[in-house]
Amino acid sequence: MDAALETAQQTIASSPTPAAEFDALSPGQRRQVFFLLPESLRESLLADMDDEQLQRFVRRLDPDEVADVLGLVADERRATALERLDANRREKAEFLLDFGPESAAGLMRLNYVTVGVDRDLATVADRVQKYEAKTGEVPTILVTEGDELLGQLPGQVLGMSDGDAVDLRDHVTSIPTVAYDTDDAEVATVFRENPESSIAVLDDDKSIMGIIYAEDLLRVINEQAGETLYEFTGVREEESILDGPFSKVRYRYKWLIINLGTAFLAAGMVGFFEDTIAAFTLLAVYMPVVAGMGGNAGTQSMAVTVRGLALEQISLSTGSRAIRNEIIAGAANGFITGVLVAVIASVFNKSPLLGLVLGVSMVLNLVIAGFFGTLIPLVLERVGKDPATSATIFITTATDVLGFFIFLGLAQSVL
Amino acid sequence: MDAALETAQQTIASSPTPAAEFDALSPGQRRQVFFLLPESLRESLLADMDDEQLQRFVRRLDPDEVADVLGLVADERRATALERLDANRREKAEFLLDFGPESAAGLMRLNYVTVGVDRDLATVADRVQKYEAKTGEVPTILVTEGDELLGQLPGQVLGMSDGDAVDLRDHVTSIPTVAYDTDDAEVATVFRENPESSIAVLDDDKSIMGIIYAEDLLRVINEQAGETLYEFTGVREEESILDGPFSKVRYRYKWLIINLGTAFLAAGMVGFFEDTIAAFTLLAVYMPVVAGMGGNAGTQSMAVTVRGLALEQISLSTGSRAIRNEIIAGAANGFITGVLVAVIASVFNKSPLLGLVLGVSMVLNLVIAGFFGTLIPLVLERVGKDPATSATIFITTATDVLGFFIFLGLAQSVL
Repeated sequence: MDAALETAQQTIASSPTPAAEFDALSPGQRRQVFFLLPESLRESLLADMDDEQLQRFVRRLDPDEVADVLGLVADERRATALERLDANRREKAEFLLDFGPESAAGLMRLNYVTVGVDRDLATVADRVQKYEAKTGEVPTILVTEGDELLGQLPGQVLGMSDGDAVDLRDHVTSIPTVAYDTDDAEVATVFRENPESSIAVLDDDKSIMGIIYAEDLLRVINEQAGETLYEFTGVREEESILDGPFSKVRYRYKWLIINLGTAFLAAGMVGFFEDTIAAFTLLAVYMPVVAGMGGNAGTQSMAVTVRGLALEQISLSTGSRAIRNEIIAGAANGFITGVLVAVIASVFNKSPLLGLVLGVSMVLNLVIAGFFGTLIPLVLERVGKDPATSATIFITTATDVLGFFIFLGLAQSVL
Repeated sequence: MDAALETAQQTIASSPTPAAEFDALSPGQRRQVFFLLPESLRESLLADMDDEQLQRFVRRLDPDEVADVLGLVADERRATALERLDANRREKAEFLLDFGPESAAGLMRLNYVTVGVDRDLATVADRVQKYEAKTGEVPTILVTEGDELLGQLPGQVLGMSDGDAVDLRDHVTSIPTVAYDTDDAEVATVFRENPESSIAVLDDDKSIMGIIYAEDLLRVINEQAGETLYEFTGVREEESILDGPFSKVRYRYKWLIINLGTAFLAAGMVGFFEDTIAAFTLLAVYMPVVAGMGGNAGTQSMAVTVRGLALEQISLSTGSRAIRNEIIAGAANGFITGVLVAVIASVFNKSPLLGLVLGVSMVLNLVIAGFFGTLIPLVLERVGKDPATSATIFITTATDVLGFFIFLGLAQSVL
């Protein structure tokens, strides 16, 4: 990346007067930097700008970008800013502001013209030129037949010499459509299955509302970079490395308290075996090994399952083969690591019996890890919860609590 | 997603004769399903096809897709398959096969024409039509001046009525360029900073080699869905939920063995305090709480740092403010959870001193978590390692080993 952009973001993040730092950038950089900033910083930057600065910034943006910016400011400022825009930008931005930013309508642009399939090329060219003259933008050409959208006409077709003889039908490329309230993750799925350059957004009555280009989605997807890891570790989506310590505490403390609850469940299970540990303290030494390995193996199974869900390669109803495979893999990996641990404990602590208990516990805990690591995300997805966020809690609780139960319980009955 | 596509993928994954299942699909579905499959399954599917089937499949694909498919088969089969293609597809696919699939050249398409900026619209239209007649594809129009690429000409411009008077210079939109060996992650960054619809790929001598559209990158980015979580949990990139148990073991056992090593470090630290635990078994009960919370807080800091690195908002040299913020946040979150733990231990175990030890350990371990959780990914990135993969090992080792040291050490000196 351009080092200047990185520096600019950090300067704005750490400055008490971000608007002044922002103003020092060139107009082109302002646009780039703004949309690279995390949302919390966009908001504080806009709050720090005076109306004049805000105006200077938005008047150079595309209508969909204007809507993204003004969606973050208070109602009154938004109204003032819209009033001062030219009519074309104002109307479009006002229309787009009605929709949630994470819906298809929030992603779409309005730079298209529609033509009936029976029109000749001269009419199409005329409509394109009028649009361009009015807005300064080159529109996408959508072709309809009656009320139905047939697809997109590549602009290059306008250059065909025998203009009158051209049947638009022969040159239309079909494009997929989505309803305006489709969420952006679903829009991404449509693009993945139909690697076309654009998607049309339709209203409830199937009329065309706008168009989404692959590049509009790239911005969204890039903003989601690392989001799964965020969900996995319980960090709120909005948090950025550029945030201050108080936001960080606010974004995370709840998750830590939930985890504290699950840690107490594990502690409770250990407490159940306090007498056994008192008699054989070495068990406390090996506790972190059994629990840690179960947790690691469980999150591996979970990672693979969550990705399979994201790519829609699996669901709860088709998941039995995957669960079986994970259990077999867990048993095999448990055997590999269990033998290692057993040998080390036997040699190092001169207790083959402890080695045996450790080895068996390892196999059983990694089977548990494979089972819950696969099943829990599948169940969560089925009941409409985010599998990446909530699954870890349940999986590590299962591997900790059941892992300690197996290890300490086996030890109690054998040693 | 289309349920039929999900089912088709799973049928192919679990069938002993995937090629027969694949052949049962319609030609359009074959193309969709193939590119949705994980790479390991693409390879086994292609290996199961006979030459005839392979031919039927590739002859309907675009040249860049042909290259993606034939890049996965043995040299001899590839040569046979190429020979049987039409000349246009063969030449292009052969050219594209020379480049790594994860480079700019591996992503690019070849459907463009170049025109000098001094040409008139009629010449441009003529070139477009000749290209279309020859290949059946509508080309992108790139405009050059001498050896320099000026940008892209929207096809719609060809519809302007006063063709001869049009100066191409007035209608060119500039597009970013990348070198042919740029890796795909870097190409994604260029798109993020320049939300245009395409990027030109240049050779060493700055001549145009091809063009990348945002939608080409969407496919790559979608394939990377959940990859960070993979790296984080030590699962190999190739693994899919559709794989069998033996691949799963092969993909994961090494990471589990590495983790076993770090678990033994933690166990060693506990072993150091065996006498203290023997005297006061309750410490073993609270060990999972201290270690677990440190691990959770550390991975939270790490997730935020890794995302900041991916979005290029931070680097080691600019990281001191972020590290300070994470330490402050760690202390605050440690205080919140530490007070909770201290109260519970004081009330439940009637030992305010144990509560105090736990509370202080919690604050210190979450400060350690914030410090290492931020510093380690920054250092790994600087020395050229993947921060998401390797960081966890170091961070949980730090929070486990130092967490046990603080907790058991404090307990030894106080209780």
